[in-house]
Amino acid sequence: MKPYVVGIDIGGTNTVFGIVDARGNVIASNSIKTGKHADVNDYIAELRDALGTLIEAHDASDKIAGIGVGAPNANYFTGMIENAPNLPWKGTIPMAHLLHEAFGVPVAITNDANAAAIGEMTYGVARGMKDFIMITLGTGVGSGIVVNGQLVYGHDGFAGELGHVIVKPSNGRMCGCGRTGCLEAYCSATGVARTAREFLEIRTEPSKLRDLPIEEITSKDVYDAAMSGDKLAKEVFQYTGDIMGRAFANFIAFSSPEAIVLFGGLSRSGDLLMKPIKESLDRNILPIFKGKTKLLLSELKESDAAVLGASALGWEARQTPTPASTQPIV
Amino acid sequence: MKPYVVGIDIGGTNTVFGIVDARGNVIASNSIKTGKHADVNDYIAELRDALGTLIEAHDASDKIAGIGVGAPNANYFTGMIENAPNLPWKGTIPMAHLLHEAFGVPVAITNDANAAAIGEMTYGVARGMKDFIMITLGTGVGSGIVVNGQLVYGHDGFAGELGHVIVKPSNGRMCGCGRTGCLEAYCSATGVARTAREFLEIRTEPSKLRDLPIEEITSKDVYDAAMSGDKLAKEVFQYTGDIMGRAFANFIAFSSPEAIVLFGGLSRSGDLLMKPIKESLDRNILPIFKGKTKLLLSELKESDAAVLGASALGWEARQTPTPASTQPIV
Repeated sequence: MKPYVVGIDIGGTNTVFGIVDARGNVIASNSIKTGKHADVNDYIAELRDALGTLIEAHDASDKIAGIGVGAPNANYFTGMIENAPNLPWKGTIPMAHLLHEAFGVPVAITNDANAAAIGEMTYGVARGMKDFIMITLGTGVGSGIVVNGQLVYGHDGFAGELGHVIVKPSNGRMCGCGRTGCLEAYCSATGVARTAREFLEIRTEPSKLRDLPIEEITSKDVYDAAMSGDKLAKEVFQYTGDIMGRAFANFIAFSSPEAIVLFGGLSRSGDLLMKPIKESLDRNILPIFKGKTKLLLSELKESDAAVLGASALGWEARQTPTPASTQPIV
Repeated sequence: MKPYVVGIDIGGTNTVFGIVDARGNVIASNSIKTGKHADVNDYIAELRDALGTLIEAHDASDKIAGIGVGAPNANYFTGMIENAPNLPWKGTIPMAHLLHEAFGVPVAITNDANAAAIGEMTYGVARGMKDFIMITLGTGVGSGIVVNGQLVYGHDGFAGELGHVIVKPSNGRMCGCGRTGCLEAYCSATGVARTAREFLEIRTEPSKLRDLPIEEITSKDVYDAAMSGDKLAKEVFQYTGDIMGRAFANFIAFSSPEAIVLFGGLSRSGDLLMKPIKESLDRNILPIFKGKTKLLLSELKESDAAVLGASALGWEARQTPTPASTQPIV
């Protein structure tokens, strides 16, 4: 078997890529600017040069088993990126096919949260687990669900949009997806900042956060204030954890996972967030599931995680979906 | 391959069992009273006699490939029925093991909603589907979830409790599980009757339902009133469908199923219920999933469905879990 895979994480700003071995060591990595190329063919050309150079520099030309890609709105079944709002290319992009043409190895593609779940299962804290849910807490809330040892893609390849489960059926906040009350509108980094702004406007207690221009408050500001003892900032985390724990109780009623694994900036808020999540989960969980599902933090280094997660999919890549094919690539 | 399986549906009142062929024909069936035997060994003895007689009468003694059982709180992995509130036996009952000892063929066991899902996948409207969700609307709300062609059991065997997803996080109704705001408290047959009672108490419009003793109103009464044009009764179904459609939107965000299949008395309410479900689903669904998931009614005859569903599991039975084993039986 060839000893390496390549992981490519396509983000709105940067595309990070790396060569990874079977033990999850990132042998080498580099990046290019995603947004520089309005034409996806120019993007592929730059990526071919940059990644090709990296591969040659590490004498890995014939040693790549496959390429795994994590990208927003990427469809595992079709190999397409479909209408991703944060990428420069409109419509449907046959990314797996284009990369296969450029590099001549099998390519598999999925969205970034699914890639994170596969990475966690292959190299991280979910090693050996057959049932778990990965929740990524970043600018948005993403998820990757594993059932019976397999990622849940659903019939159309887009399953696992737990950031867009409606947690506030009435009086819910506007979400970026156009609906109201989604988990993401409350429990992402931006959701935390929004909660802080709401609290500051509606409540009257003093808070260090009042020293900042209200529109510029970030989740990091709320974290810093809470860590220095600010009561209002702490209650923002309490509120966030309360909603998250309730949502997790519903997720557990669905797939009864061995663990829920949290990843991303907000997940590193420590007890500020974990304690209210656990309390809310305990309060809201169906008795039959009580105390059974572990709440874990990702073990992957944030800097490597995107590439590692995508690369893990590279081991699974067998046959690259082409624009003409809508068959699963398994 | 042996040509028959046996399906056993253990309900609080009756235990129905039948011999089923590979095409889903119920060759013969019969029943015994579940509640008659406080000792499970007496129950097994009567079942052995009654089912044994049925098998001999149809010359099927060496033709049974396996036995599938649907029962409340039944665990597929352990073969146990665990603390089922509506069955006469307390604690943990090694039902698969007891039946294996009595009949000498492999036995597999799961809860009734999971059995219904397997039945629908084997003989019904979900034939050929790899991703669907079965929702049973009876006294309670049950569910069986199929992902990648496999039933979702979760890490502990109890996954798929969608009746106990919390749909009203605030001001929710008390549910039989001890929590508030569960789907089951609104969208079961009893939930519909409760909604009718609430509407009658709080609202002032005339309604045919006011002629009935309020505590005795059933979902059937509400259905009959709505069908005869009663406005308040129709709005009870509107309210029910609205909550159900919203819950379904969240389920779809989880596993993106090809279809949601409805089963049970309430599912036969026609457009009274289906129209508001569809409207609410359309209003609440994440755009990426819009119009993709079919809403279907079960194709199994209600009288046969429980036995058929359980029997379908009989084809999968390979090795019966014993009390000492906690390994999956796959």
